[in-house]
Parts: sequence; C-alpha cells; structure tokens
Amino acid sequence: MHSEHQDCIDACYQCAIACEHCAASCLNEDDLAMMRNCIKLDVQCSALCRLAAQFMTLESDHIMPLCRICVDVCRACAEECGRHQHAHCQQCAQACRACAQACLQMVA
Amino acid sequence: MHSEHQDCIDACYQCAIACEHCAASCLNEDDLAMMRNCIKLDVQCSALCRLAAQFMTLESDHIMPLCRICVDVCRACAEECGRHQHAHCQQCAQACRACAQACLQMVA
Amino acid sequence: MHSEHQDCIDACYQCAIACEHCAASCLNEDDLAMMRNCIKLDVQCSALCRLAAQFMTLESDHIMPLCRICVDVCRACAEECGRHQHAHCQQCAQACRACAQACLQMVA
Amino acid sequence: MHSEHQDCIDACYQCAIACEHCAASCLNEDDLAMMRNCIKLDVQCSALCRLAAQFMTLESDHIMPLCRICVDVCRACAEECGRHQHAHCQQCAQACRACAQACLQMVA
Repeated sequence: MHSEHQDCIDACYQCAIACEHCAASCLNEDDLAMMRNCIKLDVQCSALCRLAAQFMTLESDHIMPLCRICVDVCRACAEECGRHQHAHCQQCAQACRACAQACLQMVA
Repeated sequence: MHSEHQDCIDACYQCAIACEHCAASCLNEDDLAMMRNCIKLDVQCSALCRLAAQFMTLESDHIMPLCRICVDVCRACAEECGRHQHAHCQQCAQACRACAQACLQMVA
Repeated sequence: MHSEHQDCIDACYQCAIACEHCAASCLNEDDLAMMRNCIKLDVQCSALCRLAAQFMTLESDHIMPLCRICVDVCRACAEECGRHQHAHCQQCAQACRACAQACLQMVA
Repeated sequence: MHSEHQDCIDACYQCAIACEHCAASCLNEDDLAMMRNCIKLDVQCSALCRLAAQFMTLESDHIMPLCRICVDVCRACAEECGRHQHAHCQQCAQACRACAQACLQMVA
C-alpha cells in the first residue's frame, strides 16, 4: 500500500518486535549470565530496525547506509540469539535473518 | 506468537507507518498550508505509537497510561487527517482509528 | 534558547543517558541476577524520557499526560536503582529523581 | 561522567533538540512551501541523532558506521537550514554543524 519498501519496513518492525520480546524474556531466564550479549544486541537491533523502518517510510535519501548497518547488526544479533535454545531466542534469530535479507535486497 | 498484546502492537506499528507516510506525503502536496496540523500530529502520533508498541512488547507495568494517551493522540490525528481528501490522509485516519480502538481495548 | 520547557527537556535527556548507561553497565556486572528489574526499568525509562523530550520540543498539546507517566516511571526506576550500590545505579537514581521533579513541575 | 563519547552524545542530543524545534517552528512559518526540505531533514536528523546518542551510551560495537551517517545527514540538514534566515533555521544549522564535527571526530 504505502511504499515500494513495504516488505523491508515490515521485516524491520517484525524484527524489532522479536528483539524486544527476546530481551524482555532473556531478563526472566535462569541462565541470565549467558544472555548478556543477547540482551545487548536485542536492544540495539530493535532500536536500529525501528529507525530504518521510519527512514524508509519517510522515503529518506539516506536509506541505503542505514540498511547496510541493519544488515550487520541483524546478522550479529541472529548469530548470538541462534546460540541459545530458548524459543524467544530462536524466533528472534529467525526474524533477524529475515530482516538482514530484506535490508540486503534494499542495498543490492 | 509473542504477546497477548499482539493485536495492539500490530495496530500501533501500522498506525506509525501510516502517519509517517502521511507526513512525508503531506510535505509534497500543493496545498501544504492546509496540512500543517496534519503533519504535526502525524509526527507525534507515529513516535508515540512506536513507544507504546515497544512498552507492550517489553510487557511493561506502564502500558495502561501510555495506551490511554495513544487513544487521545490517535483520535486527534484521525480527526485532522479525516478532513483531507488525499488518499494518504484517509488511509492514515483509518489506521489511527483502528489503533485508537485497539488501545481502548487495552485500557478497558 | 528553544523552549519554555527547556529545563525539563534537558532533565529528560540527562535521565535517558543515565538510564542507558546504567543498563549497559548492569549487563556487565557480576551480580547480574539482582539487576533484572533495574535493566528493565532503565530501558523503559530512557525510551520514555526521549519521547517526552521530543513532545516538549515539538510543543505538543499532549505533553501533560506524557510527563505524568514520566514522573511514575522515573520514580519507579529511581527506587529500583537506589537499592544498588553500583555508581551507575546511584547516578541513574539521581538523574531519575531530577527528571521526575522536572516533569512534576510541568504538570503542576 | 558517563562515557568517553560524552561530547558527541551531548552534541547529538543538542542537535536533536534544535532539529525538532526547527521542524515545529517551520510548520508555523508563512513561507511554509519553502521549508519542505528543511522539515523533512529536521525530522530525519533528530531521529538519527537520538539513535546515535543511544548507541554511544550503550557502548555499542556499531557506533562508527552510525556516526558516519550522522555526519552526512547533519551536513545535509545544516546546508538546507543554512539557506533560511529564520532564527530557528540558523540555530539548527549551527547545531547540525557542531554534531557533524563531533561525529567526524568519532570516526576519525
């Protein structure tokens, strides 16, 4: 409806939701000490994905470099989350990979 | 998947997208002078809806009062956008009304 | 310079900085399990304070209810951070109290 | 107090304040049609600077590329705002130049 970037915008918001859900859930886990990097990356990834979605919706001239960072941060978050067996981590890793892929198509 | 608040979270992000698309499109319109309040409310409504979605995803204890403000800001934005015939304004009004309704169910 | 709300805007951004610094530092602490609520509140408080600052700078009509939530979240975060002896927690508690006070004057 | 990046964090928040004040003020100007790009860039620059400040406060590993985008967006916003004689535009241009300079030192 709104934008040629709609698929990537949706992937960014889905990733932001998954990351924030993962961060909040990690903070309730027993093995909290193992989740430090997961939480850190979740917080960063969600904030960055929301901004990227905002810039794409605004049809900014600066979408490309922002999507490039999104690829890197989403991949880093996916790699970290992928190491943990919690369902929220696995779901987050999947959303991050999908978002990295969508952002990669933006900058291709 | 993630949350009992999922419908409201989705409505908030859809509203944020519609508001930001409306703001960017208003700034390209010929009758720009008529769109001042629409742009102002779009910017506020999108930022507020993103925060409300974030708080719901985080399962915050402070969701209720935030959703209450969302109801007010979404309604104000819907009323203003609903006055304009541009497609992006009408779509935005609709997304704002849907988000106000979803937030209202949260605080009921 | 910019706004009659300048003191409160500054207090909000100072609080956001202190909260985010506290969250990042908590995630490096040995006694991580004790810091769960501190991190959760830091993340929420920083995001909310940034939005409140944005709304005040935009001279929004919806400043009052947002500042009211800020008072509550800042107090909750100050109370939690105040329980911990880490320097970043004590600094955060102080910034949260200052921000709660500034927001309280806005809604008075 | 908080960070080796403190000067840049402060410059980013000052820039966000100036941009948002400029956007809100532009929307009240008589010569609104001339301010289209100014408003667009203000909205983007403020959001980006807030995120850059957040990432620096979090001591993220992804500060560098974000600060590089900040340099570009701040310069674009400074150039556009510098064309207009409104006090809020001139103040915004100044804050954007200071922020671009601070971010440039981060990536140097």
